[in-house]
Amino acid sequence: MAPHMAEWDEKEIFPVETMRKAAQLGFGGIYVKPDVGGSGLSRLDTSIIFEALSTGCTSTTAYMSIHNMCVWMIDTFGNEEQRRRFCPSLCSMEKFASYCLTEPGSGSDAASLLTTAQRKGDTYVLNGSKAFISGGGDTDVYVVMCRTGGPGPKGISCLVLEKGTPGLSFGKKEKKVGWNSQPTRAVIFEDCVVPVGNRLGAEGQGFSIAMKGLNGGRINIASCSLGAAHASVLLAQEHLTVRKQFGEPLANNQYLQFRLAEMATRLVAARLMVRNAARALQEGREDAAVLCSMAKLFATDECFAICNQALQMHGGYGYLKDYAVQQFVRDIRVHQILEGTNEVMRMIVARNLLQG
Amino acid sequence: MAPHMAEWDEKEIFPVETMRKAAQLGFGGIYVKPDVGGSGLSRLDTSIIFEALSTGCTSTTAYMSIHNMCVWMIDTFGNEEQRRRFCPSLCSMEKFASYCLTEPGSGSDAASLLTTAQRKGDTYVLNGSKAFISGGGDTDVYVVMCRTGGPGPKGISCLVLEKGTPGLSFGKKEKKVGWNSQPTRAVIFEDCVVPVGNRLGAEGQGFSIAMKGLNGGRINIASCSLGAAHASVLLAQEHLTVRKQFGEPLANNQYLQFRLAEMATRLVAARLMVRNAARALQEGREDAAVLCSMAKLFATDECFAICNQALQMHGGYGYLKDYAVQQFVRDIRVHQILEGTNEVMRMIVARNLLQG
Amino acid sequence: MAPHMAEWDEKEIFPVETMRKAAQLGFGGIYVKPDVGGSGLSRLDTSIIFEALSTGCTSTTAYMSIHNMCVWMIDTFGNEEQRRRFCPSLCSMEKFASYCLTEPGSGSDAASLLTTAQRKGDTYVLNGSKAFISGGGDTDVYVVMCRTGGPGPKGISCLVLEKGTPGLSFGKKEKKVGWNSQPTRAVIFEDCVVPVGNRLGAEGQGFSIAMKGLNGGRINIASCSLGAAHASVLLAQEHLTVRKQFGEPLANNQYLQFRLAEMATRLVAARLMVRNAARALQEGREDAAVLCSMAKLFATDECFAICNQALQMHGGYGYLKDYAVQQFVRDIRVHQILEGTNEVMRMIVARNLLQG
Amino acid sequence: MAPHMAEWDEKEIFPVETMRKAAQLGFGGIYVKPDVGGSGLSRLDTSIIFEALSTGCTSTTAYMSIHNMCVWMIDTFGNEEQRRRFCPSLCSMEKFASYCLTEPGSGSDAASLLTTAQRKGDTYVLNGSKAFISGGGDTDVYVVMCRTGGPGPKGISCLVLEKGTPGLSFGKKEKKVGWNSQPTRAVIFEDCVVPVGNRLGAEGQGFSIAMKGLNGGRINIASCSLGAAHASVLLAQEHLTVRKQFGEPLANNQYLQFRLAEMATRLVAARLMVRNAARALQEGREDAAVLCSMAKLFATDECFAICNQALQMHGGYGYLKDYAVQQFVRDIRVHQILEGTNEVMRMIVARNLLQG
Repeated sequence: MAPHMAEWDEKEIFPVETMRKAAQLGFGGIYVKPDVGGSGLSRLDTSIIFEALSTGCTSTTAYMSIHNMCVWMIDTFGNEEQRRRFCPSLCSMEKFASYCLTEPGSGSDAASLLTTAQRKGDTYVLNGSKAFISGGGDTDVYVVMCRTGGPGPKGISCLVLEKGTPGLSFGKKEKKVGWNSQPTRAVIFEDCVVPVGNRLGAEGQGFSIAMKGLNGGRINIASCSLGAAHASVLLAQEHLTVRKQFGEPLANNQYLQFRLAEMATRLVAARLMVRNAARALQEGREDAAVLCSMAKLFATDECFAICNQALQMHGGYGYLKDYAVQQFVRDIRVHQILEGTNEVMRMIVARNLLQG
Repeated sequence: MAPHMAEWDEKEIFPVETMRKAAQLGFGGIYVKPDVGGSGLSRLDTSIIFEALSTGCTSTTAYMSIHNMCVWMIDTFGNEEQRRRFCPSLCSMEKFASYCLTEPGSGSDAASLLTTAQRKGDTYVLNGSKAFISGGGDTDVYVVMCRTGGPGPKGISCLVLEKGTPGLSFGKKEKKVGWNSQPTRAVIFEDCVVPVGNRLGAEGQGFSIAMKGLNGGRINIASCSLGAAHASVLLAQEHLTVRKQFGEPLANNQYLQFRLAEMATRLVAARLMVRNAARALQEGREDAAVLCSMAKLFATDECFAICNQALQMHGGYGYLKDYAVQQFVRDIRVHQILEGTNEVMRMIVARNLLQG
Repeated sequence: MAPHMAEWDEKEIFPVETMRKAAQLGFGGIYVKPDVGGSGLSRLDTSIIFEALSTGCTSTTAYMSIHNMCVWMIDTFGNEEQRRRFCPSLCSMEKFASYCLTEPGSGSDAASLLTTAQRKGDTYVLNGSKAFISGGGDTDVYVVMCRTGGPGPKGISCLVLEKGTPGLSFGKKEKKVGWNSQPTRAVIFEDCVVPVGNRLGAEGQGFSIAMKGLNGGRINIASCSLGAAHASVLLAQEHLTVRKQFGEPLANNQYLQFRLAEMATRLVAARLMVRNAARALQEGREDAAVLCSMAKLFATDECFAICNQALQMHGGYGYLKDYAVQQFVRDIRVHQILEGTNEVMRMIVARNLLQG
Repeated sequence: MAPHMAEWDEKEIFPVETMRKAAQLGFGGIYVKPDVGGSGLSRLDTSIIFEALSTGCTSTTAYMSIHNMCVWMIDTFGNEEQRRRFCPSLCSMEKFASYCLTEPGSGSDAASLLTTAQRKGDTYVLNGSKAFISGGGDTDVYVVMCRTGGPGPKGISCLVLEKGTPGLSFGKKEKKVGWNSQPTRAVIFEDCVVPVGNRLGAEGQGFSIAMKGLNGGRINIASCSLGAAHASVLLAQEHLTVRKQFGEPLANNQYLQFRLAEMATRLVAARLMVRNAARALQEGREDAAVLCSMAKLFATDECFAICNQALQMHGGYGYLKDYAVQQFVRDIRVHQILEGTNEVMRMIVARNLLQG
């Protein structure tokens, strides 16, 4: 993907064909079971794959990680009929998925969402809107958290909606700092009729499903940060070695050497955090959710700092779009915000420490 | 300028007419002497003005600060004829100026520049190229540091070149992370003939003139960072007050309150550093150059952190181009790099401490 | 004081005679009016003096700054009789004063204090206890905040108590990380009878008096941090120049040079914050209290970091008590905690930003 | 050890008997082979043990970690005779060992050491002095790096010296900021005669032996930092829960909650770094030395910050010697300095990145 990342960014191209090629390698449903087309790999494998892919294009890989999360949710919480209906074409990326939790009025406080799904016979009638939806408008399958019951998390269910459903529309394509190879739009539901058979799990289980998806999602997005940071460290290393000032390579400056050493050290620490959380999630350990939050907090914060320092090491070149390092900085900036802001990560960790 | 900053950014518009209006208020030659059209204000006044303007559009103000630096150089080091020839149309911003020091191969190590000006009778023949020139291609007057003598800083002179000079050409317009309301291009000299009468100061004085310009330039650019940070703190404050999560304004979160307090505290510290350096420069104090370097280092680093934290406080909205905070982050990122990288600032300060 | 600071630390000596000599220079009541023995200097002068003194012994200077705060409170809020009775012997440091606000159960939340002063005729009967009292047990005059009315800040009055008052006793001398040249003890009141004539200001005005004292106190303690940091930078500079490794002075290491530059830059910023707040307080500006809080927060945090980095630059020597740098680190650590923790400073600043 | 750590600190007691009890549990030679009395455990086990022990007393555990390193050096590089002569009584901590590398004039630049061992028949005559020797004067076995050949690392050999050797003397006991339960003294050699049979490995192999010892030493000392940080987080958590301000536990303050979450997150990252390096060393991986340096740099820096933040959370109590948190801060401060300063760690990592 690396040769295209600048072009996809500039022209805001959603690289459908490239992703489908990746899906042929099994990257459309990495931790989805093989009987529905998934690769059946572990969370640890998944982390390693997303790290590697995101060195090529962080934004595209980040979208793929969200797609994978959605397919996993259907694979895990769907019944057999649902698994067979949705997963194969998603695993092959013939179709693409979007995760619809956030609303204009409920970001961090996801459990207060207002989108409603009113039961009418064997259908739900969906009304409301979702904000900041990755892939929104360009994707085919929408995994939507909506209120089927009373207030709070217990009143939320999870419906799968297909593009083309009457009443489903989209907001304008957002202009963003980065993540430009994936479209972001609001998703709007006006009396959308969804068959009850499209509900994942039981009524009221939706919030729990959404949160379980996010545990993996957080590892995945943190893995994308690792890839961006790893690529940036290599770019900085290369630049310091090649670029000369005062008659010798920048790499001869002890200050820059030591900063590079700090960057590499912090990258290793971030990677260990992510891998450790992936392992814990895979093993179903009780502290997995907290470790996922810690990993997301630590890795996305540290990796942004690493990329930003790598940009600084490029001097003026780091500010030019001809050089990749600035795109890594722009692309991973949002990782500190989405799938739960890093402030929410602190909240989850703190709650665990003080109420545990 | 505030209503236009997003558009100028997106469409990469160099807002010539707006700047001319600012020039009518005296902002084209703020610290230039009144007899040639300048406002005759102090460095402290200048800092206050640039801080205020950059809350409206940091990128445009930053270009204006470079223009001001150039006019001041002509006003201060030019002879009467030069002052009268160049300054009035620059002060009114009928014409625009560019500062040409950096070369592709010499950034931090400016004294090793390779552009040559060979004396031929009462002209110089200029050959070489300059990189990262703000305004390059769209401006009228180029203040060029070039080698008229041997290697090192003592061999450098300062020539004023006008657009239209045969042999003067420009590279492609650079694509940048920010600073999009001002064009950046390479400036190329191929056998450009420049009258000796266009030389500022004596032969060999060019590097000294360039550095003296930069003392003020560093305060100016730091002042632009102050404006961006001030605007960002206000945007964050507003967002925290208006945006609700968990049933109450974000502003009720103690963590965010305390972070906001830190941002405001650091902004005050940065402002005091810049004002103090401006006063020292105005008074011609011996430690002025070091104080300017300290102010540039401290203010541009801290203000970037402030803007970036303000973006974080916006959550997902902070990543959208509809919200101004991300533009402040993008625009001031380069202030840590140009007019001497912040690594060079550390070098200047250290040299003063250890060899003083 | 510098030659004695290590000994005073090790042997926990309260250097009464040395302080009296300082008082002969006018340092016992620096910003107290001259008619009662004070020096009548400004807050800015005071800051400069405390910074200079604390390069010699931070702990001793810090106590002197508290003493000065107490004398100023009597000078400012006392009536003529009280001023003439207490101030002269305090300004000459014949007698020493302690500030008694904090209680075992109310630190940051000072307004919830429990020490009561019950009115009986023209006396108050004082019961309760104070914690962490600088000078406690070794000083002569105790400025005590106590409850004469209902709960909250409005129920608090300020009494001046003299050593020897029956019922006044002291806890054990606390063992501390630093600040060893000043004793710290609990102060205990058991049916202490205090004449009404020892009350500063009106009933219920005590909390306001205490807070006004603290505005200056915060500048003073921040000034002591400046002195410690300044001395530490000089020690580090000296050590780097003298100490050789790999055949050359440590000062030839670019990384250490740049860190030293950062330390000096941050010291200048901290100093400007403190001076600026001192000026604001002197001029009675409305934002003085907030600026004092910002200055205390910024200067005590940054200066601790500077001293700690200076220790690191000393290598193993920095850990030995033969070298002064470690004492500066130990002594100023508590400045981030007392006279309102730096968390309380953030709270004050945030309240001002969000409720202003 | 926890009940005694304050007393050992205050009275500067080297707790010989307590350590011998620990040795009965196998902690005198944890990663030493069983045939000479060692426990034969892995580096990973060792790290876990030192982390656990140092929650009780960091200073004592840190000495034990140095002792273990020395025994391992004899076990690994000694011949059978040496192993049987020295290891059993060291593993049982009947005798104690000291590692003697640093000299007054060579800290970071260890390879330039000046202590000489001149060959005379089948003895060496040792002259010179060592600085900052943990246990020095109170220990029985000294593992001494000294010059038997030309300048540089290749001229260094490793001798084992026993207490009581004529010409062996000690400097004064150093007064330190922490690490008070272990004596630190200079070790002085004046014509000390050492049998050739006391040389570990071949002539010229000493520096290599010293560095290999330090790989493990760095993990060990980093593990001690983990223990101190872990204990400090627990103390802070307890204090926040118990201590009330403004009518509720400090733990209800969101800012403190979030800071606690950050501390816990960074502790987990530090632990993963140390464990990962321990595993790499155990497996003899090629990058083990770099990973040990990264782990030492990261863990000792982060853990100091954690302990220091825990102190801050204690408010005034954190500054009193009655509370353990301040001792953890004082004790681990030196971990950033010894066994290679953290600046040297950066150098090792940078060299690997740029010259690899």
